[in-house]
Amino acid sequence: MIRIAVDAMGGDFGPAVTLPACLAFLEDHPQAELVVVGQPEALAAHPLHASLQAHSRCLILEASEIVSMDDSVEIALRRKKNSSMRVAINQVKDGAAHAAVSAGNTGALMAIARYVLKTMDGIDRPAIATQLPNAAGGATTVLDLGANVDCTADHLLQFAVMGSALVAAITGNAAPSVGLLNIGEEAIKGSEVIKKASDLLRSAANAGDLNFYGNVEGNDIFKGTTDIVVCDGFVGNVALKASEGLASMISGFIRAEFSRNVFTRMAAVVAYPVLAAFKNRVDHRRYNGAALLGLRGLVFKSHGSADAFAFERALNRAYDSARNQLLERVRERIAHAAPLLVAAQGSSGADDVDAVSSSAFDPPVSTATH
Amino acid sequence: MIRIAVDAMGGDFGPAVTLPACLAFLEDHPQAELVVVGQPEALAAHPLHASLQAHSRCLILEASEIVSMDDSVEIALRRKKNSSMRVAINQVKDGAAHAAVSAGNTGALMAIARYVLKTMDGIDRPAIATQLPNAAGGATTVLDLGANVDCTADHLLQFAVMGSALVAAITGNAAPSVGLLNIGEEAIKGSEVIKKASDLLRSAANAGDLNFYGNVEGNDIFKGTTDIVVCDGFVGNVALKASEGLASMISGFIRAEFSRNVFTRMAAVVAYPVLAAFKNRVDHRRYNGAALLGLRGLVFKSHGSADAFAFERALNRAYDSARNQLLERVRERIAHAAPLLVAAQGSSGADDVDAVSSSAFDPPVSTATH
Repeated sequence: MIRIAVDAMGGDFGPAVTLPACLAFLEDHPQAELVVVGQPEALAAHPLHASLQAHSRCLILEASEIVSMDDSVEIALRRKKNSSMRVAINQVKDGAAHAAVSAGNTGALMAIARYVLKTMDGIDRPAIATQLPNAAGGATTVLDLGANVDCTADHLLQFAVMGSALVAAITGNAAPSVGLLNIGEEAIKGSEVIKKASDLLRSAANAGDLNFYGNVEGNDIFKGTTDIVVCDGFVGNVALKASEGLASMISGFIRAEFSRNVFTRMAAVVAYPVLAAFKNRVDHRRYNGAALLGLRGLVFKSHGSADAFAFERALNRAYDSARNQLLERVRERIAHAAPLLVAAQGSSGADDVDAVSSSAFDPPVSTATH
Repeated sequence: MIRIAVDAMGGDFGPAVTLPACLAFLEDHPQAELVVVGQPEALAAHPLHASLQAHSRCLILEASEIVSMDDSVEIALRRKKNSSMRVAINQVKDGAAHAAVSAGNTGALMAIARYVLKTMDGIDRPAIATQLPNAAGGATTVLDLGANVDCTADHLLQFAVMGSALVAAITGNAAPSVGLLNIGEEAIKGSEVIKKASDLLRSAANAGDLNFYGNVEGNDIFKGTTDIVVCDGFVGNVALKASEGLASMISGFIRAEFSRNVFTRMAAVVAYPVLAAFKNRVDHRRYNGAALLGLRGLVFKSHGSADAFAFERALNRAYDSARNQLLERVRERIAHAAPLLVAAQGSSGADDVDAVSSSAFDPPVSTATH
């Protein structure tokens, strides 16, 4: 039995989206249990509340506060200790759930998850990984998507190792290929950090720690050249958001052209099945559910604007990851790559206090308060 | 009369694309002259060669070498001093042409242009700027696209000032809005460089040097939130290429869905006018022609895979920029912003040898050999 803790209040729509998704998820997964966390009044106001309450595999847990989409990390972390987000993550910390899922504020989720769960031995910085559809008919896993700006070469190696564990857990492919995001022939080929990271990833591949393809460019994300694309959080975030912006512009143009006049509207009716098939093929909702990797517990982030269909996909992803021992896989792979990471940390210097305090040499003591 | 020098050998197709584009351009622009540079045999082999040779506003100039798409910067710069690319740029240097256009290797083009033309006073690093279509129905100018990785805050300010001059010259909008590319609420909001650049751009706006909108995110490029988006070359290159990859994936999916069976192919026939209108709306060929900014002469880069239609657009862009005094506009705006740039350079320190040697304090001596 796999148990998932759900922050039912997170996201743009709260219980209106999370409760239907939870019920659908329970029906689709007879081996799953849910801990649904939220404000009692808000949950009780939803028509599906009674069904969930009566469900044998669902436990409803009360939380008095909500982390809002624009709460600062400071507020979310220090002032809202009984938020639905925090209570859900505490379930993972306490061993009461295998994974937590929230559609709330990403910054707050990362900060709380990091504070409550702590980083894994050998990991300096947790990363956010998501899947994007590719032209090869599969999905490309990209990380980091914004948890870390200014990454060093050893951070990029850690991302590569964690991303490999994630894809192995979700797809069953034990040796997914990894590309390091770089720029093309224009002028200088990549920064010093990328050059160093490229060397490190090559060493890791030689040591059998990962399947390094080599450098890739922005277009390779959607070509599907590699299973995983590794980059720093600034670059990953910009690439992801630029792609979202382009996709939304294109769908807006298609809609505008098909609704221009009575003839184009008739064309839309004829073309409807084709357009629907196309839309399904690029439906970003199917890829909802980003993993927060590198923590001592599994946490998944749903898009804030997710609908019930998309939120259920995030629950599925958390379920599959827990069922396939993602946490143990990450731990094993990081332990195996430890000599390389230690060497890299030695050579890159103690330029990051955080990196040093949570390195393998100095395992953090759990001091989380509930 | 505006005269444009054309590297007829550059790009994936050479004269097969550049010569038809040149002839069409001359027909469309009675006030323009062209200097077409290429290998005599290659030019003579094209059926349009005779028409161009006979054209009163076209001069054909011989070059013995070609910079290939995979020549290193070193080879292109040191070993091929009589390349069509180099000879075209020399025309600008010598005052024989107002601007040069090439579809060749970007790295080589930037290196040769920089070596031959030198950087403008007050500019540390030239940048590459291009236009992308946006949902607002216009185009967003993005720079840098790959000439510079690891930019400092003052480089980003220079890009903002140069980008403003470019958009003013091309569109006539004297105060185009500038957005600084950053990441969203996730975790830490942008790096130290971005924070410093944001302060600098605000000071420049207060001094009347530019119209600073504030920070923007990746999706704002295609939303059209601002006229200009400024970022370092690594981020810009990844965003551009990721977008190209996504656009090509989407058009591939549309094609695949419409050609799935006899019914979908019939739907395609009915929807054809709509699909054609849509395609025209997102046609990247219309935006071909990236500007190399910050040099003492105008150079434009066409996409290597451009067809004749796209290559002519790059010629148009060069023509419009020259006609609207882009070079003088950039020079004036940079001179006006000089106090800010000097202050920024003082505070950012001499961390970049190149930046120091070509700064306003130490104008480079022209030593180009022809």
